[in-house]
Amino acid sequence: MRTRIVYGIHAVGHLLSRRSERVDHIYIQSDIGARRLGRINEYLEKSDVVVERLDGAALAKLTGTDKHQGVVASVRVMDPLDESEARLFLEKLENPLVLLLDGVQDPRNFGSILRTADAAGVDLVVTGRNRNVSFTPAVSKVAAGAAEIQPVAEVANLVRFMGVLKELGIWIIGTAEGGGQSLFDTDLTGPAALVLGAEGQGLRRLSQQRCDYLVHLPMHGSVESLNVGVAAGICLYEALRQRRLAPDQALR
Amino acid sequence: MRTRIVYGIHAVGHLLSRRSERVDHIYIQSDIGARRLGRINEYLEKSDVVVERLDGAALAKLTGTDKHQGVVASVRVMDPLDESEARLFLEKLENPLVLLLDGVQDPRNFGSILRTADAAGVDLVVTGRNRNVSFTPAVSKVAAGAAEIQPVAEVANLVRFMGVLKELGIWIIGTAEGGGQSLFDTDLTGPAALVLGAEGQGLRRLSQQRCDYLVHLPMHGSVESLNVGVAAGICLYEALRQRRLAPDQALR
Repeated sequence: MRTRIVYGIHAVGHLLSRRSERVDHIYIQSDIGARRLGRINEYLEKSDVVVERLDGAALAKLTGTDKHQGVVASVRVMDPLDESEARLFLEKLENPLVLLLDGVQDPRNFGSILRTADAAGVDLVVTGRNRNVSFTPAVSKVAAGAAEIQPVAEVANLVRFMGVLKELGIWIIGTAEGGGQSLFDTDLTGPAALVLGAEGQGLRRLSQQRCDYLVHLPMHGSVESLNVGVAAGICLYEALRQRRLAPDQALR
Repeated sequence: MRTRIVYGIHAVGHLLSRRSERVDHIYIQSDIGARRLGRINEYLEKSDVVVERLDGAALAKLTGTDKHQGVVASVRVMDPLDESEARLFLEKLENPLVLLLDGVQDPRNFGSILRTADAAGVDLVVTGRNRNVSFTPAVSKVAAGAAEIQPVAEVANLVRFMGVLKELGIWIIGTAEGGGQSLFDTDLTGPAALVLGAEGQGLRRLSQQRCDYLVHLPMHGSVESLNVGVAAGICLYEALRQRRLAPDQALR
């Protein structure tokens, strides 16, 4: 089992609230009280994750920094889910937010998208096997840690998996230049999968046909499209904005 | 005078509506009628830009592609504005949207931000001289053409220029990790300047102090921040979303 160290009250708090199944071990600085830990303490009280108290110097050694804020988690790094695991994972979620990547191959873009997906609270990023990049060191570096944390699935056939999503009651919203309606006119508060295509090529025709909606981003300049990582950020944060009116629901 | 070729009905239409002062020459395919040209025709009728009719082969030669859609513009490439030119430029605008970059130095990030700023209809991107990157070929490549089109100012002192913006009645909204309110709770419909800091460092203290508001993007994962180019996209498109209810006003 590979593990990775995550630190900071903010990051560990989110890990416990959203990915507690991945947390192997929590280390807390000996002289830190319950009040400073806030929400983390609440999670720890009702979970069975192993908690160990260490002094500040030991935490600094563990994390390689003194910015650990007295809270450190050891997280299990998981391999990408396959199609049936992804289905089981999504079935358990109440209001999933999924991101499908249809042929995004540039490692920088893939890494950047993983980082943004993690930040936006995306439940699962899905790529088509053989059509996308894999987890190279370049991806990990750009992802700034998200590559080891963000749940990812690699499916054999992305178009077929879109059928699985439909069975699960998840709406499929594809982005396309000049696609039907504006992103900002699209309801993203329910179970939703956003689909982004490779830069320059966009969604494949078969992928487009499987979408429930096609949406576009308004373009007011001379360039024809946005960088795919930037487009992903705008789409995911628009979903987040719409969902935050009921944040507990959207971000279980 | 350096010029650059821009083509396509969409791109040329936006150029004429928003940056007509930069258009040196318009070339239209001989066999294309007024209906297909739509809005472009309206602009040409009331402007004094030189229009020339050429056949499709000549346009393909001019643009190096057959995807020119029969509409080509030759655009004057401008040097960055200095402080007083930037002031004059902004004074003429009714409801400006400005982007300030406080120490963004990575050429990829700078290029990506120019591309997004152009797409979002940002009136002016302002950088501090000596603190930011300049227009290297790497910037141009990532900007996908926007580097030659997007109005940019380079000012000697960014903090002092924030004072100029205030005199012009422009609200200054800084982004900072954990900054006061959520971006999505911030009114961006009026004259506004968004300020983004360098990745990892954020806004300098003096820049923060000059801001009318500090805003943050919600972070729901384990990573501590977004890539600055992605953050710029989310901020600018949130401004666009809020302003599009009155698009003619926001995007004169």
